[in-house]
Amino acid sequence: MNEMKPADFALHIEKPTLVVNKERAHNNIKKMADKARKSGVRFKPHFKTHQSAAISDWFKEFDVNSITVSSVDMAGYFAEHGWKDITIAFPVNFLQIRKINKLAHEISLNLLAESGEAVGFLRRNVDKNVRIWIKIDVGYHRTGIDCDNFKEILDVVRDIEKAPNLILSGILTHAGHSYDQRSNHGIKKIYQETVGKLNEIRDKLRLHDFKDIEISIGDTPCCSVVDEFTGVDEIRPGNFVFYDIMQLEIGSCTEQDIALAAACPVVAKHEERNEIVIYGGAVHLSKDFIIDKKERKIFGRAAFLEKNGWGSLIRNTYVKTLSQEHGIIKTDSGTFNKIQVGDVLMVLPVHSCLTADLLRNFITLEGEKIQAAQYDFIK
Amino acid sequence: MNEMKPADFALHIEKPTLVVNKERAHNNIKKMADKARKSGVRFKPHFKTHQSAAISDWFKEFDVNSITVSSVDMAGYFAEHGWKDITIAFPVNFLQIRKINKLAHEISLNLLAESGEAVGFLRRNVDKNVRIWIKIDVGYHRTGIDCDNFKEILDVVRDIEKAPNLILSGILTHAGHSYDQRSNHGIKKIYQETVGKLNEIRDKLRLHDFKDIEISIGDTPCCSVVDEFTGVDEIRPGNFVFYDIMQLEIGSCTEQDIALAAACPVVAKHEERNEIVIYGGAVHLSKDFIIDKKERKIFGRAAFLEKNGWGSLIRNTYVKTLSQEHGIIKTDSGTFNKIQVGDVLMVLPVHSCLTADLLRNFITLEGEKIQAAQYDFIK
Repeated sequence: MNEMKPADFALHIEKPTLVVNKERAHNNIKKMADKARKSGVRFKPHFKTHQSAAISDWFKEFDVNSITVSSVDMAGYFAEHGWKDITIAFPVNFLQIRKINKLAHEISLNLLAESGEAVGFLRRNVDKNVRIWIKIDVGYHRTGIDCDNFKEILDVVRDIEKAPNLILSGILTHAGHSYDQRSNHGIKKIYQETVGKLNEIRDKLRLHDFKDIEISIGDTPCCSVVDEFTGVDEIRPGNFVFYDIMQLEIGSCTEQDIALAAACPVVAKHEERNEIVIYGGAVHLSKDFIIDKKERKIFGRAAFLEKNGWGSLIRNTYVKTLSQEHGIIKTDSGTFNKIQVGDVLMVLPVHSCLTADLLRNFITLEGEKIQAAQYDFIK
Repeated sequence: MNEMKPADFALHIEKPTLVVNKERAHNNIKKMADKARKSGVRFKPHFKTHQSAAISDWFKEFDVNSITVSSVDMAGYFAEHGWKDITIAFPVNFLQIRKINKLAHEISLNLLAESGEAVGFLRRNVDKNVRIWIKIDVGYHRTGIDCDNFKEILDVVRDIEKAPNLILSGILTHAGHSYDQRSNHGIKKIYQETVGKLNEIRDKLRLHDFKDIEISIGDTPCCSVVDEFTGVDEIRPGNFVFYDIMQLEIGSCTEQDIALAAACPVVAKHEERNEIVIYGGAVHLSKDFIIDKKERKIFGRAAFLEKNGWGSLIRNTYVKTLSQEHGIIKTDSGTFNKIQVGDVLMVLPVHSCLTADLLRNFITLEGEKIQAAQYDFIK
């Protein structure tokens, strides 16, 4: 093998391009699948992160046969590609009932409900049995029934039991407030609180004779950091397949776990401020950012292109601002001088789900091109 | 005409959908075109905002025959759709030289240069005459040669003059720091400073016998607010065709000028905090935000769906957070009680260019479906 041969994928880069390290993604999946198996819980990974049938195949090697998605269209896409057990982890969108019914006839469909209103709508409008998870808010406060409002939870459970077409599966949460943590200890604490609260609800429901209540949790920080999934029946992490700079900052992964980068051409340099202009902006990377320990807004971190992918994160180097197509990388003079206009820099995204959603298609380090879903626009 | 007939476009909404008020967009184009004509300047609108051939046709009624884009692919798309004079307002991406050459053979192609290196690359690699604009930084500090560095500007001008395939058009800037202004006075000051600095450069270049130097400016705030384009030859605003909540905050437009909204289904309600959950997240609206006068992060504002489009911005109501598919709208109890799950809310985006890039396709109030560009991924 010729040592000087450039990476296969590098030959394809002439504009912002999503590059995936398949080996790392495989390892990430394996690690999570193994931990789920050892804990005896169902692994129902969230596919919103990649939205790609080809990448979904990677999960099949690890005996994954049920998945989570975040929209009806995404469920339709993966159902078309052979997935038969799907949870749409999003409040029911009444306006898509026609598509929901179509899916209910094709696969084992799991929906979320968080109000009597939603349950009533489903009871009246779903013409095939579907499974229902009650969405519980354990502290993230995005949506779901407040975990302390047992009366409402019980009312919704009773509404579901009364509906002949709705089968109660259990209670489900996304502890998104784990993203605010910056230590393993803090994340584990969120996990324990979450699982504690959900088990309390399950225990109370048992007292009301509702016996078969499963517990489903989802966030990547908790699923990555805890050693054993005590007290739950199902996990639904998504981001872990690629991880990203946000997860690195939170402490969910190491740098060597990050499996996704956007290859971006260098188009200008500004020596007076050690700034590199890349072709790679908000429409490629998304405007999600983290605030780092030095109080800087970070829209991505950079690494050099290497024969086998990309190197370590370059010290003192980060994406400082983004406009529609431009990215500005701040660096130091040593790195500045190593980078030339016409080079390609690898940008590790802050939020891999959003970057993958924008760039939509992937190339592996081996040069394999991978498509993602294309949804119909407008009814 | 039946007074109770719902808006034609409303029949098509079952998921986040980009709705354009064509009449308002027309008025925005007309106003800018009229002002340019009266001022005797070339109107070269930036099409990155809509990226749609059908919408580009709306400009033809106003005698627009030259345009601006922000990528080589976008230039290719509009060239295919009949546009013959295009400026790629982005530093030259060396890696796309093959496509640049193809375009140079098909249309009158205008490129930006901001270094001797870029000029040298173009001289060696472009096999057909192209026009060159020197990108000047007048204070935004994204990219371009610093306006006070006349030596470098002169060097680049001389490099261009020496290249037989490069024709010097003039000097060009994007005064993006106008976006930091919040008053007409402040924006006009940016315009005057910008035009003053560019004219100073032109005067100095004339002393060096470079006579035919045009001046091109671009930002929507300046182009919207100044009454007459004194001292420039060309304007390249883009966002003005739709405007958005950011431009409203800056003072570039009125609420009645905003021509774009994302129709978003309501999927959950949380009375205890007066929050409405919509299907409409970061992958639909983008994570761009403004900080309003009350120091709140605003990711969009909401209006009710009406027969003829959408109503006034709802008071005390704004998009507070976004995750991948969820948007959280904060409101007051009066409005909270008027909105039901299954309704559609119209979200006026913070940054219409990014929202249009994400949702990509439009529907007019009359129900006409409009496609936007789909670019090839990867070489």
